[in-house]
Amino acid sequence: MTKITVYGAGSWGTALAVAMGKAGHEVVLLGRNPQEMSLMDERRENLHYLPGVTLPETVQPSVDITELEDTDMLILSVPSHSVRETAQRIRSFLKKETIVVNTAKGLEERSHKRLSEVLTEELPNNSIVVLSGPSHAEEVGKDMPTTVVVASHDTKAAEAVQDVMMTPNFRVYTNPDTIGVELGGAFKNIIALCAGFAEGLGFGDNTKAALMTRGIAEITRLGVAMGGNPLTFAGLSGVGDLIVTCTSQHSRNRRAGVALGQGKPLDQVLQEVGMVVEGIRTTKVAFELSRQYGISMPIVEQAYQVIFEGTDPKVAVSALMMRGKKHEIEEVAQIAMENSAYNTRLQRND
Amino acid sequence: MTKITVYGAGSWGTALAVAMGKAGHEVVLLGRNPQEMSLMDERRENLHYLPGVTLPETVQPSVDITELEDTDMLILSVPSHSVRETAQRIRSFLKKETIVVNTAKGLEERSHKRLSEVLTEELPNNSIVVLSGPSHAEEVGKDMPTTVVVASHDTKAAEAVQDVMMTPNFRVYTNPDTIGVELGGAFKNIIALCAGFAEGLGFGDNTKAALMTRGIAEITRLGVAMGGNPLTFAGLSGVGDLIVTCTSQHSRNRRAGVALGQGKPLDQVLQEVGMVVEGIRTTKVAFELSRQYGISMPIVEQAYQVIFEGTDPKVAVSALMMRGKKHEIEEVAQIAMENSAYNTRLQRND
Repeated sequence: MTKITVYGAGSWGTALAVAMGKAGHEVVLLGRNPQEMSLMDERRENLHYLPGVTLPETVQPSVDITELEDTDMLILSVPSHSVRETAQRIRSFLKKETIVVNTAKGLEERSHKRLSEVLTEELPNNSIVVLSGPSHAEEVGKDMPTTVVVASHDTKAAEAVQDVMMTPNFRVYTNPDTIGVELGGAFKNIIALCAGFAEGLGFGDNTKAALMTRGIAEITRLGVAMGGNPLTFAGLSGVGDLIVTCTSQHSRNRRAGVALGQGKPLDQVLQEVGMVVEGIRTTKVAFELSRQYGISMPIVEQAYQVIFEGTDPKVAVSALMMRGKKHEIEEVAQIAMENSAYNTRLQRND
Repeated sequence: MTKITVYGAGSWGTALAVAMGKAGHEVVLLGRNPQEMSLMDERRENLHYLPGVTLPETVQPSVDITELEDTDMLILSVPSHSVRETAQRIRSFLKKETIVVNTAKGLEERSHKRLSEVLTEELPNNSIVVLSGPSHAEEVGKDMPTTVVVASHDTKAAEAVQDVMMTPNFRVYTNPDTIGVELGGAFKNIIALCAGFAEGLGFGDNTKAALMTRGIAEITRLGVAMGGNPLTFAGLSGVGDLIVTCTSQHSRNRRAGVALGQGKPLDQVLQEVGMVVEGIRTTKVAFELSRQYGISMPIVEQAYQVIFEGTDPKVAVSALMMRGKKHEIEEVAQIAMENSAYNTRLQRND
């Protein structure tokens, strides 16, 4: 039996705790609010973030951070901007054998670092694994068949996580390409935002599918330049996650995009959606990275114009449609061939 | 000005005729039923297949096959099983300079040949171009921004088609990988069928996204073994078309899948959906090809079991979820490296 601690009792943390508890593991679900956590224990349900899903007996809600001390596997489920601070807070409670699984998606704001890089800096003695893929928490809570991918520099750690987390309804793939898995998860929110623009403008499925497909193509170009494997972006953590995000009614990024597409100003949109819209912050990061790496990212560029420069979304879509005539695949193929990422990645276990 | 003849006055043929007519080309829309075509001419609308879309003056409905004689570009928009017969019927009216653009998706039933191979056999003197991508006819008819890809052995012909067909709302990419473009368009219907199974079983977006992503992965494996470029399957004619097909309420393949997922027998489903369900036929072809090429296609295999062997779809999904532990990308990468398709395809212009 494996002792798993899930740090962060939001919807995704709770869903993972429930799935792992049902699989027979001893699970501690660590939150920070004593009242909320004891209510959760009493009702055996996370009423606020995952209503309707019963916590199995194997899941123990708690606020006791010392539970980390004998944990075999720590699942981090905090917002991306809290990852570094969380790692600093828990560092002294972790033994070096504990595998740390990060489920947050994003890049650190100023440094543009991937979250596994942040975690490696803060927890240098622990193996860091990232988990991503198309997975609404509500559906995992209801045992709907779900697939995810885990990636790590440390192949053994990724395989250990696969062994522990795999269940009949939760299929875990491994992928050695940590860079690609993390970048796909971070950048897909930009495309969800753009799919929202198109919807807000009253365009149909053709436009949305085009933005998604060409969006993943330009994310792949940037990701490959940054060292990722192009095939990863075609996988669960890339296009798979993009599909659930762009088609979900719940996605904040998509909803923000729809409002921007309807011509509402950014301030009002942020007020209405009411929370952090990851895709807006990530658009800025991707825009800067595209300049830094010299990668053509027309969709990111137009998204940036709409969000930060007040360009009319209709003008932005026209600009995308009226670009020069292009071959579909030559750019990414060229980049991939130039840095040989495609051919060497699997061997490098990066 | 280019004279374009569209052969086949269904929804897609009519939508393309309208788009090209609006772009200022002289377009003949060739149908076979004199009454229907003269009604269409009178009403300036294809009431049956594309209601609500007005034909511009530049589009001439006709049944006169001799219109083909001075045509610069012929767009073929007939069902996949009629492509060979149509080519035989029109052969004697075509000059050799006429570029033939095929928009049907599928493989020939017994021979398993791609439709461009069929057309090259029947029209050996003409350049054959295939057109594919995420494009509901209704949306193209309404000028919604749409992207497609054209592919050909003859790069010049593909570029000529791009030049002629590109409009502010109809963006045309070229791709030298004819094999990949055609196989993606044919095989995506299988995955739409499977996404329907999942929906019929009451599963959610996680399951659907997983089937779509892993489905395109196994289509890519087969496609690469058959000589396609893996990147093509991540593009507009692969994942892009898959996205519109799987999320559309109109897709016959998806609807048939939903009914099968709900446990209805095949006979009843075919009766209800009432027309040819391309994905059912293609499942058989892909199943046979996977054996022939020795490619693991677990989703196609389960689809085959459900459709032709009466396996309970719930059992089929369980079988998919409980397979051995897998790396996400190793299989396709291996195949690609083995036959070096990835590195040489662009040069070969195949």
